[in-house]
Amino acid sequence: MSLLVVGTLAYDTVETVTERRVEVLGGSATYFALGASRFAPVSLVGVVGEDFKPGDIDLLKRAGVDTSGVEFARGETFRWAGRYEGDWNKRVTLSTHLNVLATFDPKIPAARRASRFLFLANASPEVQLKALGQVDRPAFTMIDTMNLWIENARDGLGEVLRKVDAIVLNDEEARMLTGERNLIRAAAAVLGLGPRYVVLKKGEHGAFVMGSDVHFAVPAYPVELVVDPTGAGDCFAGGFMGYLASVGRHDPAALRKAMLYGTVTASFCVQSFSVGALQNLTRVEIDGRYDELLQIVTV
Amino acid sequence: MSLLVVGTLAYDTVETVTERRVEVLGGSATYFALGASRFAPVSLVGVVGEDFKPGDIDLLKRAGVDTSGVEFARGETFRWAGRYEGDWNKRVTLSTHLNVLATFDPKIPAARRASRFLFLANASPEVQLKALGQVDRPAFTMIDTMNLWIENARDGLGEVLRKVDAIVLNDEEARMLTGERNLIRAAAAVLGLGPRYVVLKKGEHGAFVMGSDVHFAVPAYPVELVVDPTGAGDCFAGGFMGYLASVGRHDPAALRKAMLYGTVTASFCVQSFSVGALQNLTRVEIDGRYDELLQIVTV
Repeated sequence: MSLLVVGTLAYDTVETVTERRVEVLGGSATYFALGASRFAPVSLVGVVGEDFKPGDIDLLKRAGVDTSGVEFARGETFRWAGRYEGDWNKRVTLSTHLNVLATFDPKIPAARRASRFLFLANASPEVQLKALGQVDRPAFTMIDTMNLWIENARDGLGEVLRKVDAIVLNDEEARMLTGERNLIRAAAAVLGLGPRYVVLKKGEHGAFVMGSDVHFAVPAYPVELVVDPTGAGDCFAGGFMGYLASVGRHDPAALRKAMLYGTVTASFCVQSFSVGALQNLTRVEIDGRYDELLQIVTV
Repeated sequence: MSLLVVGTLAYDTVETVTERRVEVLGGSATYFALGASRFAPVSLVGVVGEDFKPGDIDLLKRAGVDTSGVEFARGETFRWAGRYEGDWNKRVTLSTHLNVLATFDPKIPAARRASRFLFLANASPEVQLKALGQVDRPAFTMIDTMNLWIENARDGLGEVLRKVDAIVLNDEEARMLTGERNLIRAAAAVLGLGPRYVVLKKGEHGAFVMGSDVHFAVPAYPVELVVDPTGAGDCFAGGFMGYLASVGRHDPAALRKAMLYGTVTASFCVQSFSVGALQNLTRVEIDGRYDELLQIVTV
């Protein structure tokens, strides 16, 4: 079934303990779409500046991503710079230049308003609500968010949460949103804010999904060498939503499998800088790791 | 089948963020035996001082633990005091008084030397080797260790590792023992030291077992309120080894189930100070949580 993502396209500057990469392709929608496109047709809505490289649009197109919803605005593309400490779970944002993102007003192409599966990547609740208002009764909508909106736009975020099916959060975001340190309590508290499902990511420690009819936990796929975790969360969401869209279902059995597909899609992402490991990734490779992960979790 | 544990009995003083308990029953062998005794008959070898309360021996006996291997020595029982920070994964040792443990020379009762399953709880490699030498070809031996021996008795620990089937470690110990930060690489490096299996515990993030014929990961059982994590690792080992002894097997299929049983046994331990939640724990309660956990991990 049709899958739509509204999010960012960016140029990232990433420092790890061993390397630095300058202005490489990134952005939540980029990572999501590349991950999801291995499962189902994906349409991407976002904004880029005049400096966005045509080759990067081509890269998305070659991966099967519908880029007709990418708006070219005057100004520069969104820039993000960050550094990872020795512990991959700690990331320091060095700079953020919103550029064209500052005035982003998402416009869903008419042909995509009937999308059945919708992912609203991290953005202000205002932008998320605008996007949500343009899609006709999607079957399953998931959002992402971040500390900035949890702290500064809580009312708007609350309104979004009452209108969507699921939210994907990392452990720190879940704690910040709910004030609960214990992640099980935090997840339960998130459900109290409106969504039917909460997907809680714990980086190298895996993830779990909780809702009234499902509680399922999965460890991370065992990656021996992490190169750059940037985008892993969006790739997780891409694999998760991509799988759901591919089977056209969002029942508990499908959600469990989607957790595994999200996990393995993210595992490829972290093995290179930028989208290096994603651009030529095949469904066969994903299914290979899915089978491996299934072995690892099967009692 | 018969299960033997060699380890400590202690009086612990434990501080958490909200409470403090003084000189409560603890010790690796105590926690292990109480956990394991719900699955199979357990014999305990350890040493206590003249101050050890008869009521605490009775508590073990009531749980079905064979205490004939508990030696009563002149002096005081081993004391440990520690404090947990807000994050349960961080523990500060405030004091350690070895007392009778300083001269502990484990003596396995003649009737227990044919034990088929053996757990050597955290102790100096010297003590572990002495115990190992007194058991006749056990079918499956697992050891625990700690940073002290990894740093100060590496040769002895290496000798132990070449003689046993499995080692259970937490994440920090695995990293310290191998110099590998990535836990998958660390586990693989531990296997290179000799044991056939490594069980790597990650506290609230679950655990995994790795060997040439098995790689299985399990999340923690979702406990909403942790009261005191002291002894959780030994309870995990108790449930793990207790289950294996109960079925008399240690093949990969049994190891997978044992990981779940270890996980749920530990989940009871953390819900009270000392052995509060363990002394009246039943196999029916354990199986109830096992079924819940099985639901949580089944794709």
